Order: sequence, then structure tokens, then C-alpha cells
Amino acid sequence: MRRHEALLRQLAIRHPLIQAPMVGVSTPRLAAAVSEAGALGSLGTAAAPVDEIAAQIRQTRELTTQPFNVNLFCHAPAVADPAREADWLAYLAPEFRRFGAQPPAALREIYRSALGNEALLAMLLALRPAVVSFHFGLPDGGWIPALREAGIVTLACVTAPEEAALAEAAGADVLVAQGYEAGGHRGIFDPARDACIGTFALVRLLARRSRLPLVAAGGIMDGSGIAAALQLGAAAVQMGTAFILCPESAAGAAYRERLRGAPAQQTGVTAAISGRAARGLVNRLHELGEQTTLRLPDYPIAYDAGKALHQAAAAHGNQDYAAHWAGQGAPLARELPAAQLVQCLIDEWHEAQRNAAAE
Amino acid sequence: MRRHEALLRQLAIRHPLIQAPMVGVSTPRLAAAVSEAGALGSLGTAAAPVDEIAAQIRQTRELTTQPFNVNLFCHAPAVADPAREADWLAYLAPEFRRFGAQPPAALREIYRSALGNEALLAMLLALRPAVVSFHFGLPDGGWIPALREAGIVTLACVTAPEEAALAEAAGADVLVAQGYEAGGHRGIFDPARDACIGTFALVRLLARRSRLPLVAAGGIMDGSGIAAALQLGAAAVQMGTAFILCPESAAGAAYRERLRGAPAQQTGVTAAISGRAARGLVNRLHELGEQTTLRLPDYPIAYDAGKALHQAAAAHGNQDYAAHWAGQGAPLARELPAAQLVQCLIDEWHEAQRNAAAE
Repeated sequence: MRRHEALLRQLAIRHPLIQAPMVGVSTPRLAAAVSEAGALGSLGTAAAPVDEIAAQIRQTRELTTQPFNVNLFCHAPAVADPAREADWLAYLAPEFRRFGAQPPAALREIYRSALGNEALLAMLLALRPAVVSFHFGLPDGGWIPALREAGIVTLACVTAPEEAALAEAAGADVLVAQGYEAGGHRGIFDPARDACIGTFALVRLLARRSRLPLVAAGGIMDGSGIAAALQLGAAAVQMGTAFILCPESAAGAAYRERLRGAPAQQTGVTAAISGRAARGLVNRLHELGEQTTLRLPDYPIAYDAGKALHQAAAAHGNQDYAAHWAGQGAPLARELPAAQLVQCLIDEWHEAQRNAAAE
Repeated sequence: MRRHEALLRQLAIRHPLIQAPMVGVSTPRLAAAVSEAGALGSLGTAAAPVDEIAAQIRQTRELTTQPFNVNLFCHAPAVADPAREADWLAYLAPEFRRFGAQPPAALREIYRSALGNEALLAMLLALRPAVVSFHFGLPDGGWIPALREAGIVTLACVTAPEEAALAEAAGADVLVAQGYEAGGHRGIFDPARDACIGTFALVRLLARRSRLPLVAAGGIMDGSGIAAALQLGAAAVQMGTAFILCPESAAGAAYRERLRGAPAQQTGVTAAISGRAARGLVNRLHELGEQTTLRLPDYPIAYDAGKALHQAAAAHGNQDYAAHWAGQGAPLARELPAAQLVQCLIDEWHEAQRNAAAE
């Protein structure tokens, strides 16, 4: 059987395409529209309490009977460090003052990790979404077997061969190979260790050493990209940036405007927004991160500062502190309803295959 | 006509494959073997005086009547800064002392840029190699028209859409799209400005906006990579790391040993070896570069220090300061004579095409 068809069967989808989970961008409407179109929609739930994730799963189910994916953040829980946090806030204070604001008195851990969150596992086992995916590493030891037992397919995001080996040993069903081109948070397991491997090299390196199906992610924006990724040995692709401009996404007007224009041409990776490396449209916080040797507060404690600063600036119509995540292919994003975008991508992929066959 | 066939005709080669010019690795023997096998061999001549480049061209011609490529470095000539250089040598002094050596008293500009080197242009116009390629930017205004007039095809290495636009405006015939995965020196025009775009995203971005034929470079190690690059819109590929282990290359025993083993799994980009960003097997100089905020001497003045330090260490059997350039696909390198490697790559590419056609 063709490599991608085996994965389609495993995920019970028609097209080898996953809409990337994107916190703040993906919505039940977007996931449902993608899944209804025959690809795999995803919910980016990292930010939410268990009840809210459950509500999102239920909302998505009201819109589609097709399978979809629920993404979890598996980072080591943040360790508070009041001195480090105070230093960071002091460094950002002049930026707050530009907008007549004060930095918050203290920072909070605004997103809870899936690690140790047994209520989250219990909810997933009760609601049984078809697919659960992991970011920032792997869940606690018992989770993958428990999810499998419940009939849930698991996807682990990896950025390097060593991470792929860990995910395979832990029993993940599928590897999402996230190349350096990808928008949003780097899936690196250890925040201090990033090999920055590009999609092209990463997929090839993993294809040679892993027996698990691979999903290529990073820089894939059209059907030629899908064809190329499959040629490299992937069984499917994951695309995030391509879906941000869909009307079903939760991206705000300023985000959409920048993604449609010249700012899309300049993305960069910074930890200064959230505390962990993430790729987005270059803004003032990228610059501030580069200009200091301060050790950042842990993820997502630093994110609390970044969000407060964005809020202060946005109140004055300034979007230069916004977390507008985007991959290196951002200038190729198109503005289409999700179902139409999926169909267009699959048509382009088939055409690319036909052209290759004709050569 | 198929996109890659037009380029094959333009370059008068049989296979859509260029062996990357690699100073210190490529040799007339390697270039000739690759060209004889139907791909395009390259000479990495950046380091050499005009007479020596001419001698290399003549040596290559004794070994093949097929076309080959001569690569030129077009960096802004170094500006000496004795204070900056003294600071850098002082920083490296403890490393020299580990091997009972002293840093050199002063540093020299060891490689001359093609910029302003009219004797180099005159030699090229007299010897007329089939192809001339540019790295680190573009040559002086009159060069590309003069080379074209002489029947020489020009290739410009670019790492971002803005550089592609400059190369196209300057009249280059072909763009080499160098992705972040690639080994060796980043082709960035401005050493202070690197968008770090991965091969996958870069080829797609350029394919959408440039009418020139594209050569994909970075992370391509086998026939699946060739098929994928062509699927992305490239008309050919350039591969460097894949050729280092060929017996015809000038790579030394230590370099080969590290490339065959575990060190191949860890590459990084540093400017601390030469003064400009380059990707290679991670060594002590990568670390030293990360641990300081000193401004490095200009390229290639810093390289004089790096080479002196390597020499001091190598005299004690230590290879941890060596410039062992390699791309992110390094673990996939194979050890074959160049002609056999070319044939193997082309066979794999054809097989990958057949498999895609069968889907």
C-alpha cells in the first residue's frame, strides 16, 4: 500500500493534510471545516482549562462527525523565579511607559502543561477525540498507552532525530517532523537545545531512521509543497500558516493585515515573546530579545509579560508587540474559506503529481 | 520543454546536478570526475591568487572536456581594525596556550575578494570556463555582461527573495537558492542580515516570483531529495556535503572520520571560525563564538586567527578547531567515487520519479 494511504486509513481521513493546531488561531469552526473537507482539523488547546478544552471538543463535534485532532503542550511546568521575572519586567518597563502603562507587579504561569494534569487525561479518555497530538515533548509515561487503549491515535511533534527516537520509544503512532521554517512555537523538547533543522533535511533524516509514518511541517504552503514532502518520504503534511487567513480562524484584523502585506516577508524566531523559541512576524519584542543577555522568565511566565505589553500597545493602536506567529512561507498564504483551501491544495497536489509523472 | 531540460541545455550537462564549490574540499580531480559523469563539477577557488585559479582551470581541462563551474567570492573587502583584531586574539589566547602556542601578533586578509580584482576577470575572459558562479553577493557592475559576452553562464547564490531580485536585476542567468540547511558559508549578501530561510520555503518563495531557473541547495543528499527539489520548482540541485567523502575530494582524514561518525549529527552556524556565518560540524570555536559579545574581525581576517588556532591544536592531534563544513544532511553522506555517486544519485532520482508516477 502506498505510504500515505496507510496513514489516511489510520487517521480515517481522505487527504494527507493536517491543519496545524494554533492556539489563538484555530477554532472549532476551522477544525470542523477542514475535517469536513476530508483533511484533519486540529484544536490548539494549550491555553485552556480542562473544561474549556472539553467544550471545544463538543463544539467541534456539533459541526462535524469527521475525526479531528486535539493538541497538548507537554512542557516542563514553569519554575517561578521572582528575581528573574522582576529583571525582565524592569527591562520592559520603558516599553510599557511608551503607552502610558506600568508593567504588571508580578507574572503568572498563564498556560498549564499537560504534564501531571490527570483531569485532562481523564477528560480525553471520556470524550475520545480521534487524534491527540503532543508539542514541546511527550506526555507522562502512562498517557500514550492509555490513549491507545481508548482508540485514540497519537502524534508527536519532533524537530530532531534524537527527539524522534524518544517519541518512537514512548509509543507514539505518528511523528510530526517540524522543520525550522514552521511558524509558531518550536516543538523542541529541551528549550535550551535547538538544532534548527530545516524541513527538507529533517524529513529525509527521519525517513531514513524511523519506521513510524512522518508528517512534514514547516514551509509547506501549496500542492507543490505537498508533492515534494511526500517525495521526501512523508506520509502527509501539516500546514498552519496557510490556514491563518481562513475566515474560520480566530486571527484578528491586524494579524490578517500584516500577513497579507510586506511584514509577511520577514519572520524570525524569538523566545522574548513567550519564554520559548517561536517563529513569527518580526516585531519589537524580537529586537528587545536580541539586545539583551538577560535570562528570560520560564515559558509561559514570560508570555504573561508579552501579552500585557501587547495589550498596553494595542490600546493605542500599536501592534508591534503582538504574537503574530507565521512560518517562512507566509508570503504564499492565500485567503480562502477552509473547505475551498483544502480542495485547492489537493487539486494542486494532484496536478503536481501528474506533471511529475509526465516527465 | 521540461524546466530542468532547458537548464541542462543551457549548461550543456546531462544531469540536473551541480557539485557545490567547496574551498579546501573541491579539487580539479573532483570537478572533472563529476563533469565527466554528466553533472556539473565546480572549483571552489576563493582562496587562491589569479594564477592559481588559472592553473586549477587548466588542470581540470586536462581531465575533462566537459563544462565545469568556477566559483568566486564577492564579499566586501575586509576593513582592518587593529583594536578589534587584538581583542579577538586576546580572547583566543587561552586556547592557543592549551597547545603551548601564542596567538599571531597580527592578522591578515587571507582571501582576496573578486570585487575590484580586474586581473581575475581578465583571466576568466581569456580561459572561458563554461560556468562562473558568485558567492557572498554579486560581482562588480561590468562583470556579468562581460562574462555573458564571452559565452560564460553565470550562477548567483542567493538566500532570500531580496537577494534574488538583486541577482536577477544584475543579469545573472541562474539562481542557486541556498537554504539554511546548507553546509559551508552562508551566501548572504550582507553579513549582518540572515533570514535563515530553509530550502523548502526558499525554493517555493523564489519559484513564485523569479523567472530565472533555480538550483536548490541545502540538505539534498539523495535521489529523493533531487525529486523533491524539482517538485518544488527547482530546475536542478546543488550538493556539497554529499561529495566530501569522495576519494577525489581534498578533505583530510580527520574531516572524513568525523563526517562518517556521530559528529555528523551536529552541525551549527557560526561566524567565529572565519568572520562570516558558515555551517559546519560543531566544534570549540562555535562555543567560543556563543560565549562572547566581542565584535569579530571582518571576514576573512578572523579566519586567519581560526586557521592559526587550528594549526596549533592539530599539531597536538586536536581537531576541535577545524573548519569541517557540513550541511544538516551530513549523516546521509555516502563514501563513493564521484562518478559512481553521480550515477547512484541519478538512478535514485529516476526511481523516485517512477514511484511518484505509479501513485
